[in-house]
Amino acid sequence: MNRRVIILGGDGFCGWPTSLYLSKRGFDVAIVDNLSRRKIDIELECDSLTPIKPISARIATWHDLTGKEISYFNFDVSRHYHRLLTLIKEFDPIAIVHFAEQRAAPYSMKSAYHKRYTVNNNINATHNVLCAIAESGQDVHLVHLGTMGVYGYGTAGMKIPEGYLKAKVEVDGAIKEIEILYPASPGSVYHMTKTQDALMFYYYNKNDAIRVTDLHQGIVWGTNTPETKMDEALINRFDYDGDYGTVLNRFLMQAAIGHPLTVYGTGGQTRAFIHIRNTVNCICLAIENPPQKNSRVEIFNQATETHTVRDLAVLVSKMTGAEIRYYYNPRNEDPENNLRISNEKFLKLGLKPITLNEGLMTEVADIAKKYGHRCDPSKIICTSTWKSDTPVDWEGSSMPASNIDDKDGGIH
Amino acid sequence: MNRRVIILGGDGFCGWPTSLYLSKRGFDVAIVDNLSRRKIDIELECDSLTPIKPISARIATWHDLTGKEISYFNFDVSRHYHRLLTLIKEFDPIAIVHFAEQRAAPYSMKSAYHKRYTVNNNINATHNVLCAIAESGQDVHLVHLGTMGVYGYGTAGMKIPEGYLKAKVEVDGAIKEIEILYPASPGSVYHMTKTQDALMFYYYNKNDAIRVTDLHQGIVWGTNTPETKMDEALINRFDYDGDYGTVLNRFLMQAAIGHPLTVYGTGGQTRAFIHIRNTVNCICLAIENPPQKNSRVEIFNQATETHTVRDLAVLVSKMTGAEIRYYYNPRNEDPENNLRISNEKFLKLGLKPITLNEGLMTEVADIAKKYGHRCDPSKIICTSTWKSDTPVDWEGSSMPASNIDDKDGGIH
Repeated sequence: MNRRVIILGGDGFCGWPTSLYLSKRGFDVAIVDNLSRRKIDIELECDSLTPIKPISARIATWHDLTGKEISYFNFDVSRHYHRLLTLIKEFDPIAIVHFAEQRAAPYSMKSAYHKRYTVNNNINATHNVLCAIAESGQDVHLVHLGTMGVYGYGTAGMKIPEGYLKAKVEVDGAIKEIEILYPASPGSVYHMTKTQDALMFYYYNKNDAIRVTDLHQGIVWGTNTPETKMDEALINRFDYDGDYGTVLNRFLMQAAIGHPLTVYGTGGQTRAFIHIRNTVNCICLAIENPPQKNSRVEIFNQATETHTVRDLAVLVSKMTGAEIRYYYNPRNEDPENNLRISNEKFLKLGLKPITLNEGLMTEVADIAKKYGHRCDPSKIICTSTWKSDTPVDWEGSSMPASNIDDKDGGIH
Repeated sequence: MNRRVIILGGDGFCGWPTSLYLSKRGFDVAIVDNLSRRKIDIELECDSLTPIKPISARIATWHDLTGKEISYFNFDVSRHYHRLLTLIKEFDPIAIVHFAEQRAAPYSMKSAYHKRYTVNNNINATHNVLCAIAESGQDVHLVHLGTMGVYGYGTAGMKIPEGYLKAKVEVDGAIKEIEILYPASPGSVYHMTKTQDALMFYYYNKNDAIRVTDLHQGIVWGTNTPETKMDEALINRFDYDGDYGTVLNRFLMQAAIGHPLTVYGTGGQTRAFIHIRNTVNCICLAIENPPQKNSRVEIFNQATETHTVRDLAVLVSKMTGAEIRYYYNPRNEDPENNLRISNEKFLKLGLKPITLNEGLMTEVADIAKKYGHRCDPSKIICTSTWKSDTPVDWEGSSMPASNIDDKDGGIH
């Protein structure tokens, strides 16, 4: 059986541990990465909390430890179409895992440049992959990392289905049942590009019968997997800055260095979460369970639990004694929302969710405390804003920002 | 009142007559065009049936005849972001009309290059306009030329509403009514980009309160408007080739030069149509009736009648005596479809539809016959294919291609 897999963006936070996980399980892995994430670190004058090694050192260490080869190609999937096509033809993969997109909502909102970079990079990258698979004529399964954010967070109160929504419409007075892609409602330019990706998957699946699995992933937390823990040279990146850091990892690091936990707005935003070890497991399950040829795009909700940001802050605060501080919310979003999701598909395939209770203390001890000295505290606060009239000189408060903002005189 | 309008793609088939129509009515028009359509003529080794003049000659003639100034800027909206931003800041338009997209479905399917060009050009052009309006901070109404094709042609049998669909969904056993963007179902890479545009309009309208009107236009027929008829140097382009020519204009030209009318497949495809004189009128109505600030994206169905391709061929055949020939359909689509559309909004604003009966003979006499000698018959047949296994050596037949293809032995 063909076990060759190309990982686009295989040097990144999800891509690297996925590459090792698959390599460990006998897949022949080829990584494509233009190192854009490392270059953005340079732009943002920031760095991973964990000391990540160059990709060649990572791959060499992996080979030394396991005897397994991972090949690596440095080119830009959004631009070097013919290079990609040639790789597909020559390597003849069974699947391509597509992480080659700019993946931070705050980064995508920093300026017109960042909006345009995100749109240009993400749309062209996804389209080039689809176009190259079609042109190759090969039967390559595309596994794409999407986001729960494509659904939006202002749902009609329903439990969000896995991709498709059943609805009834009126046709000449009669009621007809239809099943449609869940209506998209992106909350940032980054999320917008993922909703646009979905239309490209729909089209190329329909016209060229490309097999596509779209993974609507929650917010990833945690850092290492059993593979990345095998040697410090394999360590995964950990972002703590206001643009790329994800909320739970940020809280852990903040607690570790004695910074107040940064809650934006009321903290009433409910989000879906998944541990990085579950992420890599899900991707392997997706590769091993491709959709049938000529069936529609397969969509999974790749998340294991939901929490409000406020509850997470309280949890981390209780565990570590950290103070919670509330800041103006730079995002243009509802202050509070409910979120219920279906995630039965991966559970049926055998996914074993790693819970916060199980994993949080490990993260605090192994990562946040151990590497806390590498933190630049000036990078902790988010400086991207969704609207031009958002105040940039935010001051934290021990009260939710909705109270701070209350013009009618709330609790101050 | 501010009457300044920027026309992106103002040298094209719809853009040029729109520019003149608005200029005539007292708008101060600035055209932006990188002349990409003329350059594609060079690539395709084809030319407008009508002898169009260079843009500077067009604008000079217009000035000589009317005393009105149209300014012209040659840059690429999909690439020269800062130039666009500066123009918006300096010209301070009330509206931007956005035609700056590659607009032919067959061209978008010719090869990987053409797919990638269409995606890159159309998505970045639309995004740059939205991003620049947001960055300018000015209240500019964006009027975008979309297509009926975003709805797809496999409707559930309903009359297609103007952009938004009412549907009922189940939430915990209770039925809830929602109104959503009509689910997109693009039939080519070109159409796909227009469905992606819709998500960008949705997002920038929501986040930045940009006023947007999206015009879902039918297939445009006809050539001239009263303005472009004022002098031969103002004549509009007329495409007859297999990529850019639209079906009805192609039939007229084919009849005029004695070529059989080229029907692909059974001709059972139902499409929506509008005359170019109605197009320019609709755009003016859209500019003069912007959506309220902070209201959702306004969507119009910009079409006046629907017909099957077969019926159009019969109509033209009866009028001119031309033979009808059936060819293999290069598109990946249903052989037959119904199409019913709502178009009340423009009718309420005063649009007076120009019917086929009224306009067809004028086109035959004024354009197709007059300029038929300029036709290169080798460019008439469509050579783009949607699927790699479509036969490229099509032979015409006097029977619909569905019969030709019938493996069970139909009528031959």
